[in-house]
Amino acid sequence: MNLSNLPCPIPTSKYPAVTLAHGGGGLLMHNLIDQMFTPAFNTTHIQTNQKSQSGGHDSAILFPRPGPLAITTDSFVVRPLFFPGGDIGSLAVHGTVNDLAMSGALPRWLSVSFVLEEGLPMDVLWKIVCSLTKAAIEAQVEIVTGDTKVVERGRGDGIFINTTGLGEIHHQLLIHPSRISPNDAILLSGDIGRHGIAVMASREGLVFETTIESDSASLVDPILGLIRSGIEIHCLRDCTRGGLISTLNELAISSNLTCQIQESSIPVLPQVHGACEMLGLDPMSVANEGRFVAVLPANQVDAALKILRTYPVSQGACLIGSVTPKDLAPVFVKNSYGTSRIASMLSGEQLPRIC
Amino acid sequence: MNLSNLPCPIPTSKYPAVTLAHGGGGLLMHNLIDQMFTPAFNTTHIQTNQKSQSGGHDSAILFPRPGPLAITTDSFVVRPLFFPGGDIGSLAVHGTVNDLAMSGALPRWLSVSFVLEEGLPMDVLWKIVCSLTKAAIEAQVEIVTGDTKVVERGRGDGIFINTTGLGEIHHQLLIHPSRISPNDAILLSGDIGRHGIAVMASREGLVFETTIESDSASLVDPILGLIRSGIEIHCLRDCTRGGLISTLNELAISSNLTCQIQESSIPVLPQVHGACEMLGLDPMSVANEGRFVAVLPANQVDAALKILRTYPVSQGACLIGSVTPKDLAPVFVKNSYGTSRIASMLSGEQLPRIC
Repeated sequence: MNLSNLPCPIPTSKYPAVTLAHGGGGLLMHNLIDQMFTPAFNTTHIQTNQKSQSGGHDSAILFPRPGPLAITTDSFVVRPLFFPGGDIGSLAVHGTVNDLAMSGALPRWLSVSFVLEEGLPMDVLWKIVCSLTKAAIEAQVEIVTGDTKVVERGRGDGIFINTTGLGEIHHQLLIHPSRISPNDAILLSGDIGRHGIAVMASREGLVFETTIESDSASLVDPILGLIRSGIEIHCLRDCTRGGLISTLNELAISSNLTCQIQESSIPVLPQVHGACEMLGLDPMSVANEGRFVAVLPANQVDAALKILRTYPVSQGACLIGSVTPKDLAPVFVKNSYGTSRIASMLSGEQLPRIC
Repeated sequence: MNLSNLPCPIPTSKYPAVTLAHGGGGLLMHNLIDQMFTPAFNTTHIQTNQKSQSGGHDSAILFPRPGPLAITTDSFVVRPLFFPGGDIGSLAVHGTVNDLAMSGALPRWLSVSFVLEEGLPMDVLWKIVCSLTKAAIEAQVEIVTGDTKVVERGRGDGIFINTTGLGEIHHQLLIHPSRISPNDAILLSGDIGRHGIAVMASREGLVFETTIESDSASLVDPILGLIRSGIEIHCLRDCTRGGLISTLNELAISSNLTCQIQESSIPVLPQVHGACEMLGLDPMSVANEGRFVAVLPANQVDAALKILRTYPVSQGACLIGSVTPKDLAPVFVKNSYGTSRIASMLSGEQLPRIC
């Protein structure tokens, strides 16, 4: 079922926009939940014979397989709410299932909590709910519980979404920065910088020759593909806020080693390059929402790349560098002339509110 | 350790307030996490030999006992951030552990996600983190993962907090509206209306003869006490947004039965009564954050009340009515003259942003 073909289930002639009363615990809030959120989110329920939903109760009850669980949480405040290649709804799913996947977990359940600003058009809310639901169905993750709050006009910014995800760990690998070793190879799953530039361009009204679309996507399938094929993954990390450089710095600092990467091996679309030059940004520090780094033994690079390239979301996977014993800095980038420079984490941010 | 005796770990002379860069994924964000959030939240970790923390990774790994888990999520937008008897930090713990307790679950793990407004004073953030941590330690729930976002000045309201909680279910009871039966007794755990009035008075600068303190508190202990004593609980619900009347309407509608309650049996402090009269509010529709309704077989009332009254948070527990077959309305309130009136759920809310 494609929800977005359905009209907004709250009559917009009567309630064109969210009011404070929609968060007040009374009839209007119950109507919003019963008529919009619950029917949409229930379409994500895969195991219809499992009581994995709250059914009008304060908590949802889950029946995980015995074993370890991964948990992660993310609040999404992206501005604007819609951008080429995605919106805050799909992003709120991708961001959280990707964090679970980076622990090698199979994402199973999501909670969704909204902070709405009074005046948010009801059909915008519906569009976001549809997109969020669609992304959850694609990532095979069930939305099992939620919450709705409304703040006064001028005290929020349309909509903020928190998703918290739970995943099951079905393998014996320890995927963690502590597993990274000298001589490990560093793979990148595709071209970088598109999400940050797409959001920025959309927010600032910048027009490029070709539209740059966000890379926002679920990374669950390629990660599970690597695990199922027995690739001995040492560590995974998606390159979100702070971009590739922040990710590599985090991994190097956590593992007390150094990452050495080749600038020329890092794929960047020409239009992203152009936009970054114009805006004075380094594409390696621009946020992505569908790209990750995998650190693994050098002898498994070919097998891993072969697997990754079978998935559309990671068809651009490539080797970008390797791990060495701790050097003078956490991350070095070697350019095509053979000169190395230190690539430090930025102190603040280049682009605010990109997720 | 009492964190609040410690000075703010971020030097306020250099960073007097939260900046956009504190949410940008760079050094400043990592400093905020590493110097303030992680050390504080790690003090909640009970099982030091279990890896229930993320340790610089995208997800935390949990090792629950095999069996069902309860999950619940809540975003907190209370205004003002501090009020008599509590603040947004302690409230963010109580609200979520109480929702878990209402499913009969033992709260175990919390995620905490902040949406901060640029300009939030750093020492206010620290005060909230200390209060949140203290409440988590008291409720014996471990904070295992988190997220931080910052929005521009005027696009948020100081701080919003999402907490998502996970609890283990260690008993065979089914605590659910579907279990409510005609002739069941309805117990209330104490006097009502204090949280809503405390927040409202604090926000509007109302001064009463005596300060009205919020009832915000963890309800975990009395619920576990009932379960451990073998009381056959049919349903539990905390009386938050919409107050007692909304709670009873929800339970009656979910179970397709009717709740009949005695107005004279419902405890309301005189100063809360006075404030409600002045403000034109019905105390039965005012929010609480430390009060619950328990529905159970009539023959277990005495035993249940005896147990509840041994806990400070439910020492005012009392019998307020009973369940009947479905009548003309979900909830009837009988006054001291013997006249019954229908008590409907409000359409919107009396008091916005009380949680």
